[in-house]
Amino acid sequence: MKFSLGCHLGYEVTTPTTMILNIEAMRLDRQQVQSESLIISPFVEAEPHWAIESGNLYRRLVLEPGEYTIDYRAEIDLVASREDPAGIAEMPVSRIPLEVLPYLYPSRYCQSDLLARFAWREFGEIGTGHDRMTAICNWIYQHVDYLSGSSDSATSAYDTFSQRAGVCRDFAHLGITFARALGIPARFISSYAWQLVPQDFHAVFEAYLGGRWYLFDATRLAPLDSIVRIGMGRDAADTAFATFYGSVVPQPKSVWIEPVDGAADPAREWTTEAVSVVGG
Amino acid sequence: MKFSLGCHLGYEVTTPTTMILNIEAMRLDRQQVQSESLIISPFVEAEPHWAIESGNLYRRLVLEPGEYTIDYRAEIDLVASREDPAGIAEMPVSRIPLEVLPYLYPSRYCQSDLLARFAWREFGEIGTGHDRMTAICNWIYQHVDYLSGSSDSATSAYDTFSQRAGVCRDFAHLGITFARALGIPARFISSYAWQLVPQDFHAVFEAYLGGRWYLFDATRLAPLDSIVRIGMGRDAADTAFATFYGSVVPQPKSVWIEPVDGAADPAREWTTEAVSVVGG
Amino acid sequence: MKFSLGCHLGYEVTTPTTMILNIEAMRLDRQQVQSESLIISPFVEAEPHWAIESGNLYRRLVLEPGEYTIDYRAEIDLVASREDPAGIAEMPVSRIPLEVLPYLYPSRYCQSDLLARFAWREFGEIGTGHDRMTAICNWIYQHVDYLSGSSDSATSAYDTFSQRAGVCRDFAHLGITFARALGIPARFISSYAWQLVPQDFHAVFEAYLGGRWYLFDATRLAPLDSIVRIGMGRDAADTAFATFYGSVVPQPKSVWIEPVDGAADPAREWTTEAVSVVGG
Amino acid sequence: MKFSLGCHLGYEVTTPTTMILNIEAMRLDRQQVQSESLIISPFVEAEPHWAIESGNLYRRLVLEPGEYTIDYRAEIDLVASREDPAGIAEMPVSRIPLEVLPYLYPSRYCQSDLLARFAWREFGEIGTGHDRMTAICNWIYQHVDYLSGSSDSATSAYDTFSQRAGVCRDFAHLGITFARALGIPARFISSYAWQLVPQDFHAVFEAYLGGRWYLFDATRLAPLDSIVRIGMGRDAADTAFATFYGSVVPQPKSVWIEPVDGAADPAREWTTEAVSVVGG
Repeated sequence: MKFSLGCHLGYEVTTPTTMILNIEAMRLDRQQVQSESLIISPFVEAEPHWAIESGNLYRRLVLEPGEYTIDYRAEIDLVASREDPAGIAEMPVSRIPLEVLPYLYPSRYCQSDLLARFAWREFGEIGTGHDRMTAICNWIYQHVDYLSGSSDSATSAYDTFSQRAGVCRDFAHLGITFARALGIPARFISSYAWQLVPQDFHAVFEAYLGGRWYLFDATRLAPLDSIVRIGMGRDAADTAFATFYGSVVPQPKSVWIEPVDGAADPAREWTTEAVSVVGG
Repeated sequence: MKFSLGCHLGYEVTTPTTMILNIEAMRLDRQQVQSESLIISPFVEAEPHWAIESGNLYRRLVLEPGEYTIDYRAEIDLVASREDPAGIAEMPVSRIPLEVLPYLYPSRYCQSDLLARFAWREFGEIGTGHDRMTAICNWIYQHVDYLSGSSDSATSAYDTFSQRAGVCRDFAHLGITFARALGIPARFISSYAWQLVPQDFHAVFEAYLGGRWYLFDATRLAPLDSIVRIGMGRDAADTAFATFYGSVVPQPKSVWIEPVDGAADPAREWTTEAVSVVGG
Repeated sequence: MKFSLGCHLGYEVTTPTTMILNIEAMRLDRQQVQSESLIISPFVEAEPHWAIESGNLYRRLVLEPGEYTIDYRAEIDLVASREDPAGIAEMPVSRIPLEVLPYLYPSRYCQSDLLARFAWREFGEIGTGHDRMTAICNWIYQHVDYLSGSSDSATSAYDTFSQRAGVCRDFAHLGITFARALGIPARFISSYAWQLVPQDFHAVFEAYLGGRWYLFDATRLAPLDSIVRIGMGRDAADTAFATFYGSVVPQPKSVWIEPVDGAADPAREWTTEAVSVVGG
Repeated sequence: MKFSLGCHLGYEVTTPTTMILNIEAMRLDRQQVQSESLIISPFVEAEPHWAIESGNLYRRLVLEPGEYTIDYRAEIDLVASREDPAGIAEMPVSRIPLEVLPYLYPSRYCQSDLLARFAWREFGEIGTGHDRMTAICNWIYQHVDYLSGSSDSATSAYDTFSQRAGVCRDFAHLGITFARALGIPARFISSYAWQLVPQDFHAVFEAYLGGRWYLFDATRLAPLDSIVRIGMGRDAADTAFATFYGSVVPQPKSVWIEPVDGAADPAREWTTEAVSVVGG
């Protein structure tokens, strides 16, 4: 499926500031970038860096005080893989590739060590593999309120678990936390998400099952096979769309994604299939 | 029912120390103290203080370095009131006596403000009154592991909720927290508890329903109508059996309670009745 | 010194709501209420309750949906006692009146157990008595930013200590916490405070020294001898000016306090004397 | 300087267990491994994995129930670089290599976002570069008690900062947290440390200054130029010497490191030079 997507960001920079930007669609076999442009106005260099392990593309902008806009546009051809979830099993830690193991460790926003007892009590006996992850997402959807403004940049999965409210980032952190507590590697995904209302950057997560990373979204706010990934990491600390070292006043931003050529709306029903974009 | 009970405490005091002791059975209409003795060896004065609102009896001992033992023994006639729980309703905040309202406020170990969303989601629709409190106790019993050594003096209900393990004190804190979050006044009770294994001081809690305080024990470790109360308070911070200002090395303690005159064992089944000892 | 003070509160009540109000000046020997009025419009009964231990006056309003305003006005004659702080010593726990001891216990917002090691390291050797409390207030003033919007109703002294920002309520909680950790009873005071800019309810605290409660304000925002007290308690959980059980939309409020008869401005310099209004 | 070092670990494995081991000395230009042996008894395969970004060598052991011992021995030639700290400056974020930036992000045990205000207040004006990091280490040494048993595997820098006690791991986490809060990349180092008493694995940390990683140890328990590194990572979550997925009973372990050929004791005085082993 082809998407046109992009974002418009604006900042008033009040002191010399270094900005780290991570808004461009990843280049993957199943997520082809057919064209794209990144326009920073007034012009400043945007030094690129592809992180070795994640493949994230970070750009560094060194900004003098002033007003800046950043416009990103891309056309993406996304071919999500869909499978029958019934056959997708967990891998025992004895067989998980060793480079995947860091996604089992607790991280800033995903204290899987602290919620392990709950995870085993609640999800220990609910199937395995993709079905168990679906049960986790269902649990989050049913037990946590999606509530704009209920969390902030310090909110972790531990808080969300107790306080039972959050936004997409918090839902993803909680899903990652439960997965890791159960011995399933999981990571955070920042993305453009078709049909998300209101449009904004979206956060989902992936779990490593059967030798492959599968997408999950406990918010149910967007179809999984229309998620265009930007970055991945242990949690939101790794994948902020913009980080500032200095002082800026953000202006209202806009984010969009639309199918190209009037593609028919997807069935709005929630898919029961397993969706992945990347391999093992 | 008549009980013989007591405790033996020992301390090696290494610097001049002030000790606040709260181990004596309360004197209530339904909990008559027929005889009792408190022997501190070597003798030191044990200045008494009955707290105005709670009625707790605290004693202050000013101790020079040395070895001390404290022996408390009492014979208690306890006549718990038992009622059909079906008729016991919650009181709206508009009618709760104003002197009871402080038991709605969050306290050190019972952060009812932080767990309110969960409490309403989980217990908002599960009956009202005594039945709702029973549902809360059942939930705690089913979702939290009773695990010696899993908590310490810093552990609060917020921790117990997330980490899902604790001891009697933690179970009581969590029950109090949920009750307060739902607008039901609740308080902490320290006690001697028949049939508790192993014998020790026990912590339970009371909720204010229908104009009266009813006992609850989410641990299911002792029959409610055989709980001999020592103290009450907002949480464990108010009702420690011993607090030290100075430096001591505690020796092994023993606590006991037995029915007098070979009273038959109570039915070991869990009562379905509502139990109270004090009035409104 | 004579003050005219008051507040104007407005609420849009959207569901049947019970409100607990605590805005009226306390009646004390040194704080005489010469006249006062409380007007609730439209009229609803305001059931009074004087709490036994604190003397706080709480009022309960049972409100149907609608718009309400609450106007409180009073003329107060305040005669703060001023002493030389040099002679004001701490009392050992062996001599503190037993009814004062609960103000040594940790509470919801004042986890004195968790910050004890710091308190002893930092303040253990810095004089004693009133001087030590002044050192604590100076430390807070120097190490915590007074920053509107930096905290919320869940913020505790533990958070403020780490995050180093807060408002008057947080400054008071931190002072109370350090005092208790050092064995000095301390309690929270809500008040009207002359010269506070911008005008609002103010929070300060008292420490129990030499058999008496002395006022402290680590914010340095208002002169201590012009603090007209409303309520006292273990922390802010006990002394909210308004608590709601139901659903309301607050309207902008105003709070004021002015000297009567054009009293000269007090010396704006920070007093070095010890100020108290209440006795032991 | 040449060291002989090693460790002896023993485990009783009670269920099928996967173990991830990270105990072998890293191979670096300045840390040459001249000989080494790893003996697992009874024999099981120890699948190696060199993590791409950190270079850590993890080994995976798949263990059936039974008793196991692990013996590691190595001879290491360590040539730490020593420089005058005066010339070692911080790098602005505008010039830090982008692959180093993840060491600025908060992590499970190093919540640099939460302690930023304190870090800037306390260390914002205290020199820059290596001197600032030394000031941070001095602050930790002076303000935190090194106290065995005062922390556990859940303890984070946020806790250590408030509670003011910890062990080497906690000291390292706190140093990393302050550095990151100030915009200085920092990472956790697990190691063998000569003269550590009692002998055990040791945790120190590195900060990225002037294009290079410099070692710091706020515990002052071992000379920096005799630290033989095992692993590095964002915090202890990445560098556990042993992680288990399954159930084991650990036996007492021993860890040792000694200079070869009776090398003279180093000056016991605390070096004032800057020490590094790895480059940029």
